Amino acid sequence: MAYDVIREKVAQAAALLNEYDIDCWITFVRETALNGDPVLPFLVASDLTWQSALIFGRDGSRTAIVGKYDKQMVVDTGAYDRVLDYVEGIRAPLLSELRRLAPRSVALNYSTDSEICDGLTHGMYLSMMTILQEAGLAERVTSAQQIISALRQRKSPTELAHLKEAICHAEEIFDAVRTFVRPGKTEADIAGFMREQVARRHLGLAWDPGTCPAVFTGPDTAAAHYGPTGRVVQSGHVLNMDFGVRVEGYVSDLQRSFYVLRPGETDAPPEVQRGFAVIRTAIEKARAIMKPGVQGVAVDAAARTAVTAAGYAEFPHGVGHQVGRFAHDGTALLGPPWEKYGSKPFAPLEAGMVFTLEPRLTVDGCGVVTVEEMLVVTDDGAEYLSRPQRALWLVGGAE
Amino acid sequence: MAYDVIREKVAQAAALLNEYDIDCWITFVRETALNGDPVLPFLVASDLTWQSALIFGRDGSRTAIVGKYDKQMVVDTGAYDRVLDYVEGIRAPLLSELRRLAPRSVALNYSTDSEICDGLTHGMYLSMMTILQEAGLAERVTSAQQIISALRQRKSPTELAHLKEAICHAEEIFDAVRTFVRPGKTEADIAGFMREQVARRHLGLAWDPGTCPAVFTGPDTAAAHYGPTGRVVQSGHVLNMDFGVRVEGYVSDLQRSFYVLRPGETDAPPEVQRGFAVIRTAIEKARAIMKPGVQGVAVDAAARTAVTAAGYAEFPHGVGHQVGRFAHDGTALLGPPWEKYGSKPFAPLEAGMVFTLEPRLTVDGCGVVTVEEMLVVTDDGAEYLSRPQRALWLVGGAE
Repeated sequence: MAYDVIREKVAQAAALLNEYDIDCWITFVRETALNGDPVLPFLVASDLTWQSALIFGRDGSRTAIVGKYDKQMVVDTGAYDRVLDYVEGIRAPLLSELRRLAPRSVALNYSTDSEICDGLTHGMYLSMMTILQEAGLAERVTSAQQIISALRQRKSPTELAHLKEAICHAEEIFDAVRTFVRPGKTEADIAGFMREQVARRHLGLAWDPGTCPAVFTGPDTAAAHYGPTGRVVQSGHVLNMDFGVRVEGYVSDLQRSFYVLRPGETDAPPEVQRGFAVIRTAIEKARAIMKPGVQGVAVDAAARTAVTAAGYAEFPHGVGHQVGRFAHDGTALLGPPWEKYGSKPFAPLEAGMVFTLEPRLTVDGCGVVTVEEMLVVTDDGAEYLSRPQRALWLVGGAE
Repeated sequence: MAYDVIREKVAQAAALLNEYDIDCWITFVRETALNGDPVLPFLVASDLTWQSALIFGRDGSRTAIVGKYDKQMVVDTGAYDRVLDYVEGIRAPLLSELRRLAPRSVALNYSTDSEICDGLTHGMYLSMMTILQEAGLAERVTSAQQIISALRQRKSPTELAHLKEAICHAEEIFDAVRTFVRPGKTEADIAGFMREQVARRHLGLAWDPGTCPAVFTGPDTAAAHYGPTGRVVQSGHVLNMDFGVRVEGYVSDLQRSFYVLRPGETDAPPEVQRGFAVIRTAIEKARAIMKPGVQGVAVDAAARTAVTAAGYAEFPHGVGHQVGRFAHDGTALLGPPWEKYGSKPFAPLEAGMVFTLEPRLTVDGCGVVTVEEMLVVTDDGAEYLSRPQRALWLVGGAE
């Protein structure tokens, strides 16, 4: 039941205001079918149409101000003490609530570094500032990045159960596709087979159907994030796929690598085996140092160094990201200190965070070897949530 | 093929810069699976992951700067002259492009009044301003509201064809549900039947499945935007439904009203017939004054006055909105001058806009009468795209 997660997360949010010394947190949205705030699925169960404010006070109050037609749906969540509705405009009820709270700080959903904390549009920011000015609170605005990051990364038991189920379904579909992949099939054939398995299970895909799954066979494939093509699986290819499913709003995100045996071969050639071993080592080195308090930049460096020290080119992305309602979720990132990642690689790990580990390397003439596992940070380390791929998946047989 | 619409709309956008005297328009996004800009489906065919800029110059140039893994997908659209990619950060290539264009004005996607033009998040606005400051362009920023509004409202022939198809499917499903509605069925039964029809046609719903269709039977129902309940259809009820489907990314949005005959009745009672006639009159009065140059506030007033002059309470929403990729689309609105609508009711109508007309009123003790039609603005008026409901749909038979 979707309301369970909402009630868990709304209660969690209320407690975070004290932890981060913030008096008031406002999520301010409109027409969320068009312009949703990524935090919204934790706070309400349906779209909001007119300007709407979800207001948490440090006094423990949880107040929703929404348009007349959205009121009943918000009441139904059972997560708010008061649901106020309006017809002509939100200014008056919002001002009244702000005056009641008289907060010393007002956190809004913006962040240069973290997209999950950046759901407030600039136009809505301008509208909110007009109202805050009228209430004498314009100087007290701050970013809600800490609250939203904590809310998303501290997975509740219900959230972890959904994530594990999403991983389990993806692994079963990987098991099925191992019997389907063979020389002569195209990337698109393989992706079609996997999407059919997802449909039979009445699940959603973890991301955009154009690239979920992504399937890449052989050398000279397009870069990651590209859709499956008519390229044909041939012996001697390394083939990799990136895939996940959605269960109750939570997703899995896993990659697996195959080798397609040449006539007479019984195992992958040494250079492919070596590539795979380096990927396994990189994942284990990263996992070994993951625990609460460690920064993602250190985890990334452990995996990155394992790959470059073995003579391969550096992978052009962080070694891992959080997973939750989206495949790329959370603020803290296991990444290098590159401009595009801002402060994310420096956020410390916490227990309850769910991460991927996904180093990659190219074996010239064969293809890209990449494995992506999912792990949860525990009190003193990190545990696999996925069944780790311990060996290349071999595809045999003639073309 | 999705690329057709993208190429049509990208070409249209390029021409709009001259029309509105703007030197440069930048759509600036990241992780669009989480935080999409509503204009994005017109500009690219897939999600963008790292910070990405889609830049239109008045010199006719169309430049995309995207992360390495997204490059090929943007190249494939065929809509951009240049697709630049990066690994570590967008700052350097973006600065270089800004210096090449040296624009006197830079339009960004923000608007207090129009959510379709407000896809830039506040965090991304701050990041963009840092780069614009470095380029000496921070003082030249303006809203892209005119460009985006025109882009969405001037429907291309392909877009109009998709909208007509979405209307046609919805009407066929309304025809089917007329044979299904009868006393004893619940709102949820009826909604389930309709969603099943949508699934059989392999179509999407026009909005959130929780409220598409919305079905309301009898007096004392929840307000609009609420999901179907276990409330049972009974004789003497007015029943209404709000429904639409999605075809190639474009949606329909229609409402129809039923009357459930009491034993011995052969038509609705006079007060229900009168209510329906007032709704028809309100729609016709609104349609009669729609043409290019007229403001939505005047169209709304024509319908609103027809309802209140007949002694019914004023409906608490605008009489119509644009439709496109979303059920609530476009900037110009057929609405009253209320705070929440900002300047939208004052934007003049243009040929090619697609609007709904949807007045409503309550017949005490029976239910809500509401009809929603879809129309396109022509060079000298407005034409129905839907088959207008000319009479209440009567449901006969015993409970």
